[in-house]
Order: sequence, then C-alpha cells, then structure tokens
Amino acid sequence: MRKLYIVGLGPGGGQDMTGRAKAALEEADVIVGYTVYIDLIREEYAHKELLTTPMRKEVERCEMALALADSGKTVAMVCSGDPGVYGMAGLCYELSEKWPEVALEVIPGITAACGGAAVLGAPLMHDFCLISLSDLMTPWETIQKRLRAAAQADFVVCLYNPSSHKRKDYLQKACDILLEEKSPATPCGYVGQIGRDGESAAVLTLGELRTAQVDMFTTVFVGNSQTKILGGRLVTPRGYLQR
Amino acid sequence: MRKLYIVGLGPGGGQDMTGRAKAALEEADVIVGYTVYIDLIREEYAHKELLTTPMRKEVERCEMALALADSGKTVAMVCSGDPGVYGMAGLCYELSEKWPEVALEVIPGITAACGGAAVLGAPLMHDFCLISLSDLMTPWETIQKRLRAAAQADFVVCLYNPSSHKRKDYLQKACDILLEEKSPATPCGYVGQIGRDGESAAVLTLGELRTAQVDMFTTVFVGNSQTKILGGRLVTPRGYLQR
Repeated sequence: MRKLYIVGLGPGGGQDMTGRAKAALEEADVIVGYTVYIDLIREEYAHKELLTTPMRKEVERCEMALALADSGKTVAMVCSGDPGVYGMAGLCYELSEKWPEVALEVIPGITAACGGAAVLGAPLMHDFCLISLSDLMTPWETIQKRLRAAAQADFVVCLYNPSSHKRKDYLQKACDILLEEKSPATPCGYVGQIGRDGESAAVLTLGELRTAQVDMFTTVFVGNSQTKILGGRLVTPRGYLQR
Repeated sequence: MRKLYIVGLGPGGGQDMTGRAKAALEEADVIVGYTVYIDLIREEYAHKELLTTPMRKEVERCEMALALADSGKTVAMVCSGDPGVYGMAGLCYELSEKWPEVALEVIPGITAACGGAAVLGAPLMHDFCLISLSDLMTPWETIQKRLRAAAQADFVVCLYNPSSHKRKDYLQKACDILLEEKSPATPCGYVGQIGRDGESAAVLTLGELRTAQVDMFTTVFVGNSQTKILGGRLVTPRGYLQR
C-alpha cells in the first residue's frame, strides 16, 4: 500500500508525542518536514531518511511527500502541534487528487491551544475560538469579524500566529477589537516555545496584553467573562461549583 | 512534594496517549477517574491502585484526588481527551485552594476535536469554535448566542455533547440556528467513539445533519463556507493553493 502519514509531533516533539505518532515515524522509510520540525526529532530518528523544505514551501513539501509515497516508500510528514489545526493535513488532501493511489492518514498531535493551556492552568475549560492573526492567506477583514464575533458571544479566545516581522502591531489591533466588548481587566496569558527549550509564560490582563511583545512562536489566551487568576494560574470555571 | 497530575488520555487511551501522560501514570501511586475512563487503562495499569467515581460526581472526584495527594501519595487523575477542554483541570485548580501544598500539573491529551478531525479528514484547518451543547451548566441562551456568532463569522464549528437522553433535539435546534447563516449544503461530519471500539464516522450536509441520530459520545463538525468533501473526506482549505 502507498502510504502517507501526516503526523503531529505535539508542541515540542519527544514526550509530547503520542504512541501512534511514534509508531508511524518508526514505520516510515522517509520523514519529511519543515526544517524546524525535523530538528525536533533529528536525534531520535537519525537512522531514517530525513528530508526538509524551508518555510513557505508548503505546496512543494506536500507534493514531495505524496510523490515519494506514490513511488512505494512509506512516508511520514511531520508537523508541529496537530497537522489538522493550521497544519499540512488539508493541503495534503487537496493535492492528493493527483496521486490517487496514496492512502493518507492523519495522526493528531497536541495543538498549541491545548499545550499552552496546560502551561497556564486551565483557560479553555469552556467554549472557545481559535483564530490565527496571520493575514497571509486570510483577509484582515475576516479576522476582524471573527475577533468581534468571539468577543460578543463571550468565547474564550486563543490566538495563533499573533505576530511576525511584518505584522508587529497585529496583537495590539486584535486586543483593541476584543476591548470593544471585553473588560481591560479580563485575565489573559501567553506561552512561547511551548514544550521546547526556552519555554516562557505570562499571565496578565487584556489591557496589559495590548502592549506585550510576543513573537510568532507564541500562543495567546484571552479569557471569557468568568476567567480568573487563581494562585498565578489562568482558570476558566465551567460551573461545577455554581450549579 | 505533594503532586497531582491531571492527565489527558486522548480519545481512546492506549496509542493515543503521549509519552508524558504514560510517564505520569507510571509515576503515580494512585490513579483516579470516572469509571469509563479508568476502564480505558485498567488492563495496562492493573498494578496501580485504581479509584473510580461515577458520572456527575466531579467535585467529589477532584476533592478525593487532592486529599490523596495531600496525604503524600502521588496521584494521577485521568480524563478522556484533554483535561483542559471540558475536563477536570479547571475544577481541580478551583478546589486546590483548600489544599495549598499540592502541586498540580496538567498533562494535555488529544481532545475530541483534533481526534475526530483526523478521522474525517482535515475539517479544522482554519479558524474554528468549540461549543458544548450541554446546558447542564450553561444557559441555553448563551449556547444559542455562541452558535449564531460562530455562523455569522464563518467559523468552522465543532460541537461537543451534541445529545443526551434529556436533550434529544439539541443538535436539531443547533443546526436550525446555524442554518440561519449557513447553507444546507455546508459539508459536515461526525465521529462516534473516537479511538475506541465501535468508532464510527459520517460525512454529510448540514441539512442532513439536522435529522441525524447521534449520542453523547459523538463529536460533530460543521464546515465553513470553504469546506469541501474530497474523496469522501471533509476538508477545509486554508488557502495555500489560492494565494
């Protein structure tokens, strides 16, 4: 069978990986991925053929993986976090129409929302939205609309890609939209380099988050109207103690 | 140190668990959980002290775990999926104020949104909302408001707890709200018993979902305006092929 596994490494690889993910990498003849993600597993899988492609070459990376699988090799394409959340799973399915004999299997991983939430406490205990602030492929107007809708309906909000060199003020802009509905005292938090060397975390208010300096490897959490800070942890009650 | 691990088993336990989750269960003297979740790991951890409490006894379960940890035992409380997403992590933090010497650590797991998405294809590739249809602890008006906001801003929507004995028509009601904004042709899917014996999945339209029979162990996915069915898989393009 011609097989392509699309494998989630979780936030940092290693101990964050599931047994299914490890088994797929062990089974693979070739492991394909963005350089930074291959680096997370390079040591443990040094005995495998490891192929990397740079950032922004997503189409080429998926086509390479599909073509290799079609040639008869068992291929694992690795993604940080979960390949099904802003990862490569969708693109692989879209491109796979050209390689109909390759069977695709997505192996989920811990996405940054779940990994970062665990570092901060328990901010995602109630209904929440994931929104990417990257406007590379989504019009900024759509992102604004989603931020506004999330704030109006009192969702907890988790922001991916909150910043980049070209978008230094996007987190500030996003906070300004959320502040139209949410109090500046709303408890928030962020985690950088989740599960990797240099992991860092902060708990702060939405007013403070507005001017926080975060990079593209940071995941941001904005509480709902019930979210609290308890002993330094960000916690959204679900209501067990109130019923 | 007095330690309580709050551990995510992923959807089905076993191969879905991360290395960190397995290490915590191995380290624990006692493993505590809802009967159904303990059953997922009973065989592998038969050498441990296993304590179960029934459904709806969430406060008692967390208090038992905290008190045991305070007595000097290393305790792991297990949750299906991710303890940080509609799980026990928040309640443990809330209750832990009574046991200030116990150190809590949340170990994330694959939540049903990510596990189910992988079964269906790649529906969560773009901004999405998680909404629980259980009104045990959330007013139905709040749930309705969130469904409407999610539809208006064209989020992919993932529904937890879509049905129960007392709420047989909640999925239908939710679909009716989503249909105010979304086309009845919107591609949708659902997965029951993710990662467990009897796993089942379906891809269908929002119009068909409205009358689908699902149970409380089912996770439901409603696409955004770009979501497609490709070779039987539910796929939300992120835009790599359009830029």
